[in-house]
Amino acid sequence: MSLNEFELIKRYFACHDSYRSDVVLGIGDDAAIVQPRPGSSLAIAADVLNEGIHFPASTHPSAIGYKALAVNLSDLAAMGAVPRWFTMTLSLPRAEDSWLRDFASGLFALADQFQVALVGGDTVRGPLSIGIHLVGEIDAGVVLQRSGARSGDRIYVSGSLGSAAVALHRLQEGTEPAPGLRERLDQPVPRVDLGRRLVGLATSCIDISDGILADLGHVLEASDKGASIELESLPLPEIEMTGQERLLAIRGGDDYELCFTAPANLATRLESISAELDCPFACIGEIHDKPGLVLNGPEELVRSVAAGGYDHFGEPLQV
Amino acid sequence: MSLNEFELIKRYFACHDSYRSDVVLGIGDDAAIVQPRPGSSLAIAADVLNEGIHFPASTHPSAIGYKALAVNLSDLAAMGAVPRWFTMTLSLPRAEDSWLRDFASGLFALADQFQVALVGGDTVRGPLSIGIHLVGEIDAGVVLQRSGARSGDRIYVSGSLGSAAVALHRLQEGTEPAPGLRERLDQPVPRVDLGRRLVGLATSCIDISDGILADLGHVLEASDKGASIELESLPLPEIEMTGQERLLAIRGGDDYELCFTAPANLATRLESISAELDCPFACIGEIHDKPGLVLNGPEELVRSVAAGGYDHFGEPLQV
Repeated sequence: MSLNEFELIKRYFACHDSYRSDVVLGIGDDAAIVQPRPGSSLAIAADVLNEGIHFPASTHPSAIGYKALAVNLSDLAAMGAVPRWFTMTLSLPRAEDSWLRDFASGLFALADQFQVALVGGDTVRGPLSIGIHLVGEIDAGVVLQRSGARSGDRIYVSGSLGSAAVALHRLQEGTEPAPGLRERLDQPVPRVDLGRRLVGLATSCIDISDGILADLGHVLEASDKGASIELESLPLPEIEMTGQERLLAIRGGDDYELCFTAPANLATRLESISAELDCPFACIGEIHDKPGLVLNGPEELVRSVAAGGYDHFGEPLQV
Repeated sequence: MSLNEFELIKRYFACHDSYRSDVVLGIGDDAAIVQPRPGSSLAIAADVLNEGIHFPASTHPSAIGYKALAVNLSDLAAMGAVPRWFTMTLSLPRAEDSWLRDFASGLFALADQFQVALVGGDTVRGPLSIGIHLVGEIDAGVVLQRSGARSGDRIYVSGSLGSAAVALHRLQEGTEPAPGLRERLDQPVPRVDLGRRLVGLATSCIDISDGILADLGHVLEASDKGASIELESLPLPEIEMTGQERLLAIRGGDDYELCFTAPANLATRLESISAELDCPFACIGEIHDKPGLVLNGPEELVRSVAAGGYDHFGEPLQV
């Protein structure tokens, strides 16, 4: 097709940069100019999704556009920041009108929902890959970090865990997962509102992208603490699963829920936030001074989960 | 090799995030936190380099690291902004120690020079591709844009044009270009200091990434103006070139020089900036109200350049 880079950007992406008054200069110059609020700090996150690694080749383009932004929104949610502006580097094997239209529709559906503006980027020819860098704002000094967990804190998880992993497994086995399940894989809901509400309450927070045990491991390492987890308290999806799928659900991370810690005396406060946001929280364990992660639950389940390796650092890894 | 993503980031990239006191939280959490100066606006640029498209497969990894950051610094230079913080998405076919060490050395040599901090990013397995998103600061309201060129303004170009294009051509023909020439392709010097000095003086500015005629075309379009260019005033490299190479040099854009416009009465002021920065400027033409780009010079040269197509929009394009 004859669409060049400029026409492509104009047709699919440049039409959406006007709904934030703090965008002084959007797409079309050498760089975008934006105006942060006085006194705010910036939160900056970056994620890239490659076809075949981060999403199956069968993924609908609108789901690709949605998810590329969702994983970054989830990172900012975990800091308690308000997402504002993003740039996108888009590597495409070809410029195909229907693909681009669908991709943009998924991307901007989510961008509109959270009022974040695409302010610039780069479009090149290459294997399908989407890099998004998102800038958000937060009041100076009040960020959620991984490093603040304290002994005695309760460990919470939002929503439910494992639907995305089970959906991916079924796809890989050649079964199309039920629509609701597939949606959890393709269109995870970033917990931006929850993250903002947790600022000043939670002692630590992380978004679950690598799996609850691996990501909790990051919190424990950053906080120099240990924890015990009740495996039977993990909020797994209420669907029929094989034993293997149950293990996958426990270890899966692609749901982009938040894992956070908070002192026990905030339980009632957290309950009311959960009700307000219509977002269930599960209390799954407790922080200890003693390093290490103790898994509690039925002996066989504990053995299977531990054998599966909950130490992200020991896994055959991503690069 | 057994390096996982976390070890890789720690070993090659996380050791460099501490030399800016405005980095509140660097690599290692869900997002970085940085503190902009009160009253500043943000300039945000993003570029991606793919192997085989933006650099030949034979490029040394240190030059890849250098150039990935340089093209973004050049974008911020063209806005007159001060570069501050960047994130990087790195797609790698494999984690190879010597490659990563060299890549990081090229990247950080330039980062150190301009005191920009790598604050986060993402590392994934895939075809070699480097996405960098750079955030800079600028006093609110005093940005250089493409849209400000006025009738009667002189058109200037910094440094010289075409060395990178000639070097690439020779590489593609199987000849190793002379070291100085290859350096212009692999390690272009972003004109950050010049951009900052042009704020308040230049009426428009753009960095030359697509070629002087194409990029000047962007300025004319954004400013709703026309221009005449003296082809013999273009600052081409002082090396022996074939006729074809001369045309390539005229059309080449990978030198990342700045093209800017300024009223004639600022000529003396610009001369002293040129001397202070040890950066030659060539005056290559003038802005007119009448739309279109008039090429002046020897008839045959004008015909050849025009036949080569100076309209970026008409070229078989990049995606």
